[in-house]
Amino acid sequence: VIQVADWIGTFVFAISGAALGVERRLDLFGVLVLACVTALFGGITRDVLIGAVPPAAFASWQGIAVASVAGVVTFYARPLLDRVRQPVLLVDALGLSLFAVTGTDKALAHGIMLPLAPILGMISGIAGGMLRDVLVVRLPIVLHTDIYAVAALAGGAIVALGVWLHVPSAAAMSAGALMCVSLRLLAIYRHWSLPGAWEDET
Amino acid sequence: VIQVADWIGTFVFAISGAALGVERRLDLFGVLVLACVTALFGGITRDVLIGAVPPAAFASWQGIAVASVAGVVTFYARPLLDRVRQPVLLVDALGLSLFAVTGTDKALAHGIMLPLAPILGMISGIAGGMLRDVLVVRLPIVLHTDIYAVAALAGGAIVALGVWLHVPSAAAMSAGALMCVSLRLLAIYRHWSLPGAWEDET
Amino acid sequence: VIQVADWIGTFVFAISGAALGVERRLDLFGVLVLACVTALFGGITRDVLIGAVPPAAFASWQGIAVASVAGVVTFYARPLLDRVRQPVLLVDALGLSLFAVTGTDKALAHGIMLPLAPILGMISGIAGGMLRDVLVVRLPIVLHTDIYAVAALAGGAIVALGVWLHVPSAAAMSAGALMCVSLRLLAIYRHWSLPGAWEDET
Repeated sequence: VIQVADWIGTFVFAISGAALGVERRLDLFGVLVLACVTALFGGITRDVLIGAVPPAAFASWQGIAVASVAGVVTFYARPLLDRVRQPVLLVDALGLSLFAVTGTDKALAHGIMLPLAPILGMISGIAGGMLRDVLVVRLPIVLHTDIYAVAALAGGAIVALGVWLHVPSAAAMSAGALMCVSLRLLAIYRHWSLPGAWEDET
Repeated sequence: VIQVADWIGTFVFAISGAALGVERRLDLFGVLVLACVTALFGGITRDVLIGAVPPAAFASWQGIAVASVAGVVTFYARPLLDRVRQPVLLVDALGLSLFAVTGTDKALAHGIMLPLAPILGMISGIAGGMLRDVLVVRLPIVLHTDIYAVAALAGGAIVALGVWLHVPSAAAMSAGALMCVSLRLLAIYRHWSLPGAWEDET
Repeated sequence: VIQVADWIGTFVFAISGAALGVERRLDLFGVLVLACVTALFGGITRDVLIGAVPPAAFASWQGIAVASVAGVVTFYARPLLDRVRQPVLLVDALGLSLFAVTGTDKALAHGIMLPLAPILGMISGIAGGMLRDVLVVRLPIVLHTDIYAVAALAGGAIVALGVWLHVPSAAAMSAGALMCVSLRLLAIYRHWSLPGAWEDET
């Protein structure tokens, strides 16, 4: 189940990268790079930081293959994408929650201490999108809009809390994913966001 | 002593990141990310390069905590900051010299050869500020203004020289830190800078 | 032979970074950073990903020395450079093919599976130029112009194929380098490029 969910998350993250690449008029290779970077760089960063090398993305070919397929589809079928933007946003929330929860779990398994593991889960979920934005020379959206990273952090915190309380791993991970996806969807529909620095000026 | 100095350096570096985040009107999370990145990314880069994983920033919670506190303080008390800009610049020089010297020392302890260790010390001191600038989409200031990285390099070189001459470690590190902080303060007060490429055109 | 070729590739890549730094009016240190980053970051990334730490660039001083010399020469002798732009483009193709082929070979030696090794070869060849572009705040050129990364990928694929077919390593690497350099030169002279996203609009 987790494996399939991971592929879905990878696919959806890759679409968001590829769509931005198409918007910025990159060539096919550039679009594929953005697709792979967005989908895989978060996990790669986490794995390098916890010492799990080669990172999962270079230990099996499936991640790169799934991200590349998403990139090619996006490159050749963008008009289609505009019609499914809303569903993509929902599946993206699912992908985020999955990356946050499994990232936290993997960090714990590699000996990262409890209070820091959710940060590595969050990095798994957001670093790909940050590098995507840096590559197309724009301020990473995760730094200034919306509740996104905080949802990932909260999901990871539930997983760490579960381990601390000796809750069975599957239960803690389900609860963490539910927490993350709920926060994220509430943020989307209620336009929640964090306090912004610009409010100082009003 | 070194531990306390390290926290002070982390705190001041984090303020410089957070202040830039406030200036660019990021939200609270974005400001915290910039604070942590600026304070911790240099050491993380060094640790990944020398094979010390998980990096120190993920092996204990203090670094992230100190940087986050600095971020929150900066976010909610920016007007205060404007009044202490000059002292911050001085403490920043202290932070830089500390990171350069301890970074060189740690690189040597992990088997990096003598002439290259100061480069890893310098990376400890400047990589955080470089990523901070890349994230807000501006040319890293360390690449075009002032004597900053060179001061870090000189401080690290003193440490490496000391090891080569079998000087006691504490003495070499003090001398290195003194060298770095002096160079940096002289650069600030005398407006020293490196030759710039634009001078070709005059 | 490979060692000398590697230094030539490093030198030429460093020139491309330093020349951009001069163009953007960085100071001497900034130009040296761009020279080193462009020449060495690809190999550093590959080494971190395959677990070969410290990376080759920090295990011996030659790489940094060669790149720094190239940086200083470029800084003080830019007018000269304009006259040799065409040869530089040719030697750059050589450098790319070498990095792609040796990068793939090293990835295989560290246990990366056959279909993924060429990707690490490609990363060796292009990541330096990508970071160079990110640091000067421009869209990485490899993402939107020309056949460059694909040539590296093709060269690496030949090496992987050779290993799979038990062809002697030297033969496979020569064939891979030849493939990469030919593709790259053909792309330069025939103005080949990949399909671009902008063609959707015509």
